[in-house]
Amino acid sequence: MQPTFASDNYAGAHPEVLAALADVGAGHARAYGADPWTTRLGEVVQRHFGQQALAYPVFNGTGANVVSLMSMLPRWGAVITSRYAHIENDENAAPERVGGLKLLTVDTPDGKLTPERIDEQAWGWGDQHRAQPLAVSLTQSTELGTVYTPDEIRAITTHCHERGMRVHMDGARIANAAAALGSSLREITTDVGVDVLSFGGTKNGLVLGEAVVVLDPDAVDGVDYIRKMTMQLSSKMRFVSAQLLAILDGDLWLRSAARANAMARRLRSRLDLMIEEGQAPELSFSQPTESNGLFAVLPRAAADRVREQFAFYDWDAARGEVRWMCAFDTTEEDVDTFAEAIGRELRAEHDA
Amino acid sequence: MQPTFASDNYAGAHPEVLAALADVGAGHARAYGADPWTTRLGEVVQRHFGQQALAYPVFNGTGANVVSLMSMLPRWGAVITSRYAHIENDENAAPERVGGLKLLTVDTPDGKLTPERIDEQAWGWGDQHRAQPLAVSLTQSTELGTVYTPDEIRAITTHCHERGMRVHMDGARIANAAAALGSSLREITTDVGVDVLSFGGTKNGLVLGEAVVVLDPDAVDGVDYIRKMTMQLSSKMRFVSAQLLAILDGDLWLRSAARANAMARRLRSRLDLMIEEGQAPELSFSQPTESNGLFAVLPRAAADRVREQFAFYDWDAARGEVRWMCAFDTTEEDVDTFAEAIGRELRAEHDA
Amino acid sequence: MQPTFASDNYAGAHPEVLAALADVGAGHARAYGADPWTTRLGEVVQRHFGQQALAYPVFNGTGANVVSLMSMLPRWGAVITSRYAHIENDENAAPERVGGLKLLTVDTPDGKLTPERIDEQAWGWGDQHRAQPLAVSLTQSTELGTVYTPDEIRAITTHCHERGMRVHMDGARIANAAAALGSSLREITTDVGVDVLSFGGTKNGLVLGEAVVVLDPDAVDGVDYIRKMTMQLSSKMRFVSAQLLAILDGDLWLRSAARANAMARRLRSRLDLMIEEGQAPELSFSQPTESNGLFAVLPRAAADRVREQFAFYDWDAARGEVRWMCAFDTTEEDVDTFAEAIGRELRAEHDA
Amino acid sequence: MQPTFASDNYAGAHPEVLAALADVGAGHARAYGADPWTTRLGEVVQRHFGQQALAYPVFNGTGANVVSLMSMLPRWGAVITSRYAHIENDENAAPERVGGLKLLTVDTPDGKLTPERIDEQAWGWGDQHRAQPLAVSLTQSTELGTVYTPDEIRAITTHCHERGMRVHMDGARIANAAAALGSSLREITTDVGVDVLSFGGTKNGLVLGEAVVVLDPDAVDGVDYIRKMTMQLSSKMRFVSAQLLAILDGDLWLRSAARANAMARRLRSRLDLMIEEGQAPELSFSQPTESNGLFAVLPRAAADRVREQFAFYDWDAARGEVRWMCAFDTTEEDVDTFAEAIGRELRAEHDA
Repeated sequence: MQPTFASDNYAGAHPEVLAALADVGAGHARAYGADPWTTRLGEVVQRHFGQQALAYPVFNGTGANVVSLMSMLPRWGAVITSRYAHIENDENAAPERVGGLKLLTVDTPDGKLTPERIDEQAWGWGDQHRAQPLAVSLTQSTELGTVYTPDEIRAITTHCHERGMRVHMDGARIANAAAALGSSLREITTDVGVDVLSFGGTKNGLVLGEAVVVLDPDAVDGVDYIRKMTMQLSSKMRFVSAQLLAILDGDLWLRSAARANAMARRLRSRLDLMIEEGQAPELSFSQPTESNGLFAVLPRAAADRVREQFAFYDWDAARGEVRWMCAFDTTEEDVDTFAEAIGRELRAEHDA
Repeated sequence: MQPTFASDNYAGAHPEVLAALADVGAGHARAYGADPWTTRLGEVVQRHFGQQALAYPVFNGTGANVVSLMSMLPRWGAVITSRYAHIENDENAAPERVGGLKLLTVDTPDGKLTPERIDEQAWGWGDQHRAQPLAVSLTQSTELGTVYTPDEIRAITTHCHERGMRVHMDGARIANAAAALGSSLREITTDVGVDVLSFGGTKNGLVLGEAVVVLDPDAVDGVDYIRKMTMQLSSKMRFVSAQLLAILDGDLWLRSAARANAMARRLRSRLDLMIEEGQAPELSFSQPTESNGLFAVLPRAAADRVREQFAFYDWDAARGEVRWMCAFDTTEEDVDTFAEAIGRELRAEHDA
Repeated sequence: MQPTFASDNYAGAHPEVLAALADVGAGHARAYGADPWTTRLGEVVQRHFGQQALAYPVFNGTGANVVSLMSMLPRWGAVITSRYAHIENDENAAPERVGGLKLLTVDTPDGKLTPERIDEQAWGWGDQHRAQPLAVSLTQSTELGTVYTPDEIRAITTHCHERGMRVHMDGARIANAAAALGSSLREITTDVGVDVLSFGGTKNGLVLGEAVVVLDPDAVDGVDYIRKMTMQLSSKMRFVSAQLLAILDGDLWLRSAARANAMARRLRSRLDLMIEEGQAPELSFSQPTESNGLFAVLPRAAADRVREQFAFYDWDAARGEVRWMCAFDTTEEDVDTFAEAIGRELRAEHDA
Repeated sequence: MQPTFASDNYAGAHPEVLAALADVGAGHARAYGADPWTTRLGEVVQRHFGQQALAYPVFNGTGANVVSLMSMLPRWGAVITSRYAHIENDENAAPERVGGLKLLTVDTPDGKLTPERIDEQAWGWGDQHRAQPLAVSLTQSTELGTVYTPDEIRAITTHCHERGMRVHMDGARIANAAAALGSSLREITTDVGVDVLSFGGTKNGLVLGEAVVVLDPDAVDGVDYIRKMTMQLSSKMRFVSAQLLAILDGDLWLRSAARANAMARRLRSRLDLMIEEGQAPELSFSQPTESNGLFAVLPRAAADRVREQFAFYDWDAARGEVRWMCAFDTTEEDVDTFAEAIGRELRAEHDA
């Protein structure tokens, strides 16, 4: 397949991850996480997130989110989140259907929650008629490609903790956020009060695999049982753990994310320049490009012609908004060819 | 780790499976199953199971079972199964908790359901107070290592279909059953009336991966949606599909299963001989050895000393019953060393 | 307790309902709905709603809504509804937690859905990632006291049916809507395409009791089983059915609703007159008064002093909005005393 | 309808209960339990069960059981109970489907659990694959009409508490048990270590209504929220509470239960005498008659002819076992006529 700008999960697996899989392949090991690779992953996660951190490998991002939230909330709990959140839009209601949770959404034009936005739903504690808002879930980097600063996260966690609410971070692309901020993983999670993290591996070059990373053990209960009963417990767990080790033990997580971000910046720069020079008529951007995704508005006909060569998704078809994602394996040549195609089709459309 | 006889999921991944993973690793592919490997897996599954068969790759065995059963049953459904079934004992109630299903169990001393045993629970249709028995789930090979013959399966499916019940097969070890019977996969599923199969890959040498194989499309509804909402949909699905292809496109599934079965038979023969010769005092077998597992009763102290060298599980600790599983990578030397250790410790215990 | 304007469920039971309970009290009858009263209720419901209609008595309004929606939707279904809907705000997520349903909300400044508003969420069919919008739930009269005309309902049901969506009506106050419109119950349900109705009894003078009324039997499946498994099946059902008969066999349902509406109109007229005459400073209404509830904005201090005498609830405390409900037993004297108190406290507040 | 021996829920409502309903009927009261009757019920319940007891009125017995068990157990919990338990057989899997609970059943030939029987399922704590047995549910009087002595209950609760398990009592017929034992309600609940009780009202002469009675507040969490979200919260709760008050404030609960028990004893005596005198050929009893139900075995043809006059249910049709229940309104004449009919049909069958 051609290079795509559809999603970071269109990318394959990083060669170093595949090598790690091959290395761990032979011989017997205890199942369900009682193996040396999972033990070592626990240590590496503590190096990144602090000595209290606990890592629970799972299969996929929806699994990581639902296991996290179920572990954090009683049966009567509700989760305040952005109307753009993955848990709200892209999980076929797994949080509700598997977890029995209620999502209380607020509008976030830039994808980012704030204490004020949270307060639109943060009320009604003790009222038996209302699903109890006991957690907030934010996504870093957001579904709109924006990135929370550490201070923004700290403002949210302080606000939530004061009100008895826990904070979950959907970190499907946390590596991209850390790379964008020049922060360590810890500086945007543990150090700013996040309680539980869905750590994303798949979009960072794994075959598959994520981890529920508990940053405050007091924030959760029964993670082991919940992971099993929601069907997220791998029997040959070493194969998930070894992949996570491959990115987290060294700096592969950062290299891959930095590359994806750099390619997104390059694409944005190319297109901004074209716009400036009048070479990209009717193209505009609907979000700042802070991590590895671009959100652009352009005429549908032009978008569709570009799409014949390079796969990508509509974001909001009604307003002509599309999403272009870069991955760890996107090359400068991919970006340049793509940018040229966009300019060409925009001009053709404009001249037609 | 030493070779073990604990579970076929203590084994690693087959080298041919790891090679397939490496082959498929680079480049972009459409996510969520719209990739060429998943398409080809669909074709290969049809070659094995018939032109009507549909394959839905999932992550693990519990996932395959729960997605299958939810797809087969309305919200008010119940599943008749053996009291030894994996869905009853080893899934932390995922069928109940995720699927809202009721399990109606019957005793099966050899692990195998029969029409008569099914009838202990097959009643009460139309009674709003009773969870409606609308499916039967049998395991092939069973949790007790026994194997249903095609005629036995046919008797069950005919019985069930006449009563409006569908038949699910938990085929976590279906390859071992086929190898034991000398049957094709089709001869013990589609051809004898099974409606939906959980096809097992992990215990057959995969890193991870199973498939819901729908044999009668009229038996299910909404499999796609259910797979997603139960968090069993892989984004980079090609990596699951490619592994399943690695075992199913050629005969690797059969080679691996046949090897595991042969090793179990070898172990049984060795120990039977020892028993005959008085070299294994107080050892007896509680089940016939028909596939890749042995169920034996022996003094606890002897068992525990063997376990210091070779991992294995108690099956029914109260009666001193243990389970010894062989895997695709068990060697003749593993078996012989293990048999010798058992004999030695039994004799030592006996002499003490 | 003083007369209140808090909710129509602060009212007691209508004397004719209590008399019916006493009449049915003695002697044996078959349980779980196989009694003569429930049979007769079925006939009376058909007289009101058409020969195809089926009545399933349940305990409460949340129960009626959840049983209705579960009967209408597969496990992967979602319900489009107003952000003000009772199912969204006042049922502690019972639709999600008991039914596994997803609610997709849209803004409705007057509480009323329209085809255009529905379309904000009516998309994504066939996309496995999206909870499938397969039903719409509207409330008649709405949570904001407004009333859908038959034409408005017809526009919605036509729009929904064309898109494969079913239509549920939460009729906790349907009697008030019919009374307001001068319509029969049938003219605002069956005749305009509603598929399933939660028929409200409790707010219409019952001790307790509602009914799921299936208007199109093709729209549902398994209602009996679902009612039982969601714990909404009464053993001595005759006592629920007899109450529903008491209001539906004659015109008590209409008399009670008409009275409540008339009292709301009277209150509105009184207060409108005061406003006109400058006797109710800083009082305004945020919704038209079309059924038995008023939504007003007034200074908090004044509201709180009125509340010392007459119970009522805040609706949107942030903007000083309150809700005043009239019930079947509200008297003209209650209304007049209440209106006077409001005026008095507003003037006192204004003068302070 | 003729008097029946089908179920204590075929009986109507006690006149004193109906009178209480009428008394409470008029005027306004705060909804959802904030009314004087519910407050007074709380006090009366404390008089019966101890100062720590908390009463939560609900609609029906299944509701009481499921709210109790969900309040006592985390999401990963399982409940050990008799294979004859109402929660296992007669609730269409509400505990599993609404509560996400797993039931672990044991055989109990006389309907009664014992520490030994409980131990068949009381194991596997900490094993993530096993639904965690954290509560035991026993029924008093049992589904087989037998009655636990206080010592038997104490033995169970001590055994369970030592193992970290809580004890729930399904007291749908607890009044009959207390009457049979000559005990107070407290002596067979609080005083012998029961943690949570489903207190039965409907079978004791209510129109409808039960209560979750929390005997040890440390045993539960979130009862209010759980009651609401499982749709067991009555808006006009005073009408449920007033009925419960009607039986519990004085001794009506005891009078009604004692009457039902006495009628069962009378029926048993009559039939025992007939058996002794050879006037009831082929009739035998399968359980002792300790409360208000009899379990008998007789020829099917004779049973069916008696059933033409008096409704009753088969218990185990395969072995010709039937159940005859007496209620608070069963008269001596009902019993005598019924006994005569049984004798007559048995002799006719025998002579045929």
